[in-house]
Amino acid sequence: MEVGFLGLGIMGKAMSLNLLRHGFKVTVWNRTLSKCDELVQHGASIGETPAAVVKKCKYTIAILSDPPAALSVVFDKDGILEQINNEKGYIDMSTVDADTSSKISEAITSRGGRFLEAPVSGSKKPAEDGQLVILAAGNKALYDEVLPAFDVLGKKSFFLGEVGNGAKMKLVVNMTMGSMMNAFAEGIMLAGKSGLNPQNLLDVLDLGAMSNPMFKLKGPTILQKNYTPAFPLKHQQKDMRLALALGDENAVPMPVAAAANEAFKKARSLGLGDLDFSAVFETLKPIGPSSS
Amino acid sequence: MEVGFLGLGIMGKAMSLNLLRHGFKVTVWNRTLSKCDELVQHGASIGETPAAVVKKCKYTIAILSDPPAALSVVFDKDGILEQINNEKGYIDMSTVDADTSSKISEAITSRGGRFLEAPVSGSKKPAEDGQLVILAAGNKALYDEVLPAFDVLGKKSFFLGEVGNGAKMKLVVNMTMGSMMNAFAEGIMLAGKSGLNPQNLLDVLDLGAMSNPMFKLKGPTILQKNYTPAFPLKHQQKDMRLALALGDENAVPMPVAAAANEAFKKARSLGLGDLDFSAVFETLKPIGPSSS
Amino acid sequence: MEVGFLGLGIMGKAMSLNLLRHGFKVTVWNRTLSKCDELVQHGASIGETPAAVVKKCKYTIAILSDPPAALSVVFDKDGILEQINNEKGYIDMSTVDADTSSKISEAITSRGGRFLEAPVSGSKKPAEDGQLVILAAGNKALYDEVLPAFDVLGKKSFFLGEVGNGAKMKLVVNMTMGSMMNAFAEGIMLAGKSGLNPQNLLDVLDLGAMSNPMFKLKGPTILQKNYTPAFPLKHQQKDMRLALALGDENAVPMPVAAAANEAFKKARSLGLGDLDFSAVFETLKPIGPSSS
Amino acid sequence: MEVGFLGLGIMGKAMSLNLLRHGFKVTVWNRTLSKCDELVQHGASIGETPAAVVKKCKYTIAILSDPPAALSVVFDKDGILEQINNEKGYIDMSTVDADTSSKISEAITSRGGRFLEAPVSGSKKPAEDGQLVILAAGNKALYDEVLPAFDVLGKKSFFLGEVGNGAKMKLVVNMTMGSMMNAFAEGIMLAGKSGLNPQNLLDVLDLGAMSNPMFKLKGPTILQKNYTPAFPLKHQQKDMRLALALGDENAVPMPVAAAANEAFKKARSLGLGDLDFSAVFETLKPIGPSSS
Repeated sequence: MEVGFLGLGIMGKAMSLNLLRHGFKVTVWNRTLSKCDELVQHGASIGETPAAVVKKCKYTIAILSDPPAALSVVFDKDGILEQINNEKGYIDMSTVDADTSSKISEAITSRGGRFLEAPVSGSKKPAEDGQLVILAAGNKALYDEVLPAFDVLGKKSFFLGEVGNGAKMKLVVNMTMGSMMNAFAEGIMLAGKSGLNPQNLLDVLDLGAMSNPMFKLKGPTILQKNYTPAFPLKHQQKDMRLALALGDENAVPMPVAAAANEAFKKARSLGLGDLDFSAVFETLKPIGPSSS
Repeated sequence: MEVGFLGLGIMGKAMSLNLLRHGFKVTVWNRTLSKCDELVQHGASIGETPAAVVKKCKYTIAILSDPPAALSVVFDKDGILEQINNEKGYIDMSTVDADTSSKISEAITSRGGRFLEAPVSGSKKPAEDGQLVILAAGNKALYDEVLPAFDVLGKKSFFLGEVGNGAKMKLVVNMTMGSMMNAFAEGIMLAGKSGLNPQNLLDVLDLGAMSNPMFKLKGPTILQKNYTPAFPLKHQQKDMRLALALGDENAVPMPVAAAANEAFKKARSLGLGDLDFSAVFETLKPIGPSSS
Repeated sequence: MEVGFLGLGIMGKAMSLNLLRHGFKVTVWNRTLSKCDELVQHGASIGETPAAVVKKCKYTIAILSDPPAALSVVFDKDGILEQINNEKGYIDMSTVDADTSSKISEAITSRGGRFLEAPVSGSKKPAEDGQLVILAAGNKALYDEVLPAFDVLGKKSFFLGEVGNGAKMKLVVNMTMGSMMNAFAEGIMLAGKSGLNPQNLLDVLDLGAMSNPMFKLKGPTILQKNYTPAFPLKHQQKDMRLALALGDENAVPMPVAAAANEAFKKARSLGLGDLDFSAVFETLKPIGPSSS
Repeated sequence: MEVGFLGLGIMGKAMSLNLLRHGFKVTVWNRTLSKCDELVQHGASIGETPAAVVKKCKYTIAILSDPPAALSVVFDKDGILEQINNEKGYIDMSTVDADTSSKISEAITSRGGRFLEAPVSGSKKPAEDGQLVILAAGNKALYDEVLPAFDVLGKKSFFLGEVGNGAKMKLVVNMTMGSMMNAFAEGIMLAGKSGLNPQNLLDVLDLGAMSNPMFKLKGPTILQKNYTPAFPLKHQQKDMRLALALGDENAVPMPVAAAANEAFKKARSLGLGDLDFSAVFETLKPIGPSSS
């Protein structure tokens, strides 16, 4: 199977290597073309522009860093639109907002092309190991055709229906995560202030029905006050805001998520927005972080 | 090692059988003595009264159904107090409130006896499999001496310090659980109302960092509206109330737990108190459960 | 003093009559011109179009029903922009969102005109009695010049700084109102469920430091389940959402407003959005309104 | 009409003077008897002990500082119980908890006496001016008989039914107050952080439907960071806790009060418990009060 691949950042590089390793013919492009060299050593061809990649390949996958980059490869000169047509499929695996995704979808489909949004859950390590979770939405026939590629890239892929549903699913997941993190933080603080050893709480939780990788990972770092950002608090709060807005549109009351969102806002007001989202723990302390 | 064992309900029967199976000499007592027969077939001796068991055994373990039963075996005629002394240890594994535990502790220790409270996390199946988690507090020397028994009964035991800390740990754990269940319920409802398939959300969550046995167990039953009580909602709400009271004593703000508690109270007001605590999901529905 | 006046709805008619009664020369325009007749009987002149009014008058006041109407009188054919110049002042007293207000402001000022947004607090009765509260923002010199008109229209006017601040002030006020209404509703429900007579609570509140016209007005109607909309619940919820968004921009945690917002969302999910905002009381009831 | 009067603190002195001024014959007692002198100058008689007062007077009113003092005058040697009988009525106007009130009620009625609890709303100034609000509960016939005294002491009295309802009404009122104060604090903070002048918000609120004496009094002091305690924050939080507990008993969800309670707890954790309850405003600030 032959695919185009746009974007060779941390994620894109790992993913295109995986495809090559599994026998796919891959034509790569990257804004800084020199980044293509390593891929070429592993058997990739090079496309000079996004348009050139699409011209050559029936299926083109992209994973770009942000909405402007995602829009640029589509709409700019030598972009995808110049070569898209009813024999081509475009799969955007970047994490972008629903508006950006819709704009790209409309442009592709209005020229007869087929489109899938397919944001992923998982970062560098799962990308290297082919263990991503893929949240695809858009053209179902295209989804079925590129499944062999998804099977290489991820441990599981979902087809979620119309364009936008991939982004929505990420919001619901991240909202649940934000509330869970607050539940955990309050538990740790209550244990400590009640004369219990918080480490014991972590151990007890880990032995029971609530045991999960996030608690296992974040519990010890919270106790060490190590908030090196894996997922920045301000991004977590933004996702909770967007999830609450989604609930607002659909008249879904979410009192616990709303309370969690306010805790993250409190953390932002304390200047913790760039730290890891587990730093919401600091909002429960008697005194602001400056003096603790 | 020889131990007395008081209370042969679902938990006590499984636990005493485990002790017998691992070579402990066990003298059992139960309010309804006929319940002792099966244990006798497995090698247990019978004590006629709690006092008789204590008289015979250096260590006596009890697991009774509720605070009145726990108090009764200690304070009533033929109760433990009649035979307790400085050579005896009493280990109460019942789930009781801190006041009950303190009352028992004071009575035992004032007569020279040694005392451990040791409530467990886990129900019938873990009891049978020796996979309980034991939250012990009180006399440390006694804890060390009965560790061989705890090793048979549980996969892990904790010594948490002074009497009361076992009960507190359970509250902190259950509070975290109640907030997590609300986070989960809101996520499922938001998914459904936003045009996503809630089953997809369960699958995505199960593949990620939040994956945990509780979500795995309760997700499907929530989608089936099956609220057969494993842990009744009214007990969950009571534990959240007590955890919030513990936070109040120690000036710990817990806004997310407070919001979750109100959701459980809303559920109680809808008549759902006797259902499983996952029925808090119903409070998020457009119309009360009577018409849904 | 001569002023133009655009829009003769309930508010505009009462306000322009007040100006006439106090000796202002008023040139009126309304989309349905026949509505001008009554004003003419009280001494008003008629302008054929918004542009004609602006051409004739140094100051033109408008109070339109909604953002599209507010934009239309400015941007459409025969609209204000055709005659605006550096000798003219335009005062928009409509209640519109900040974006609409900014769009109008930019168009007016880019042509040299001066602009004030001036939404009002108060409805029909205060408009008739000249007892409005005017929340003006924009051009301070223009504000000072039209103060004689504001003094006739309102009991008090505020100059709040740059364009947008008038809309923001309304949001802050309405957010406070929404939280207060929830506080009140919870109090009434708690009184009733605790065996107290809710009417006694209303009387006690009315005799103390919290006594206010809103409680006095809404208390009896809540007890009668009379939710005839004075301020529709869905508009209250929208204002809370916008106020929370404003707080989000500025990293202001507002846990109580967030909880109140969720209660209003719950009410919307129960189908109460078109009723009065005091219908949030229904969310506290044991069973949904359909069966109560 | 002749009444006994026990307790001549700030409140009791003002109240007994009012009774004398309106022609009542008053027999006073105070733990420190010298405090009776001023009353004697205004025409009062002195009773040597509570029992002596009750022996002399058909109706005895008490207003003591706290529950132990309230219990002491009833149960101690020379206390009320020694002379109470079916021709006597005892009216306790102290602010005590429901348990204390019940204990006193049972003791009085079991000896044939009649009892009213009658806590008041209002402090020194309203006491002097006869403008208290009286929340009476207990024996209705006794209430009717002492109405002439209540009419002198208060601007309004309520008969609320069975003993305990007076205390409950105070909790409901104070819960509403605590939520309102949070709504107000959040509004002031949002105004300030959004570029509005908070003083303008106070002025706008004061001109509208939410205008109330509490906002009028507390708004300016909040802006001055003047938290001299009129009603200590820790007492406000305690009343919210008790009101939430009352709601818990009766399955009343109160999400806004719960969020407000957590804000007061946060304030306590910041060391603000002894300041005025309006100091909850400080919890909304970017940095803890130590560094602001």
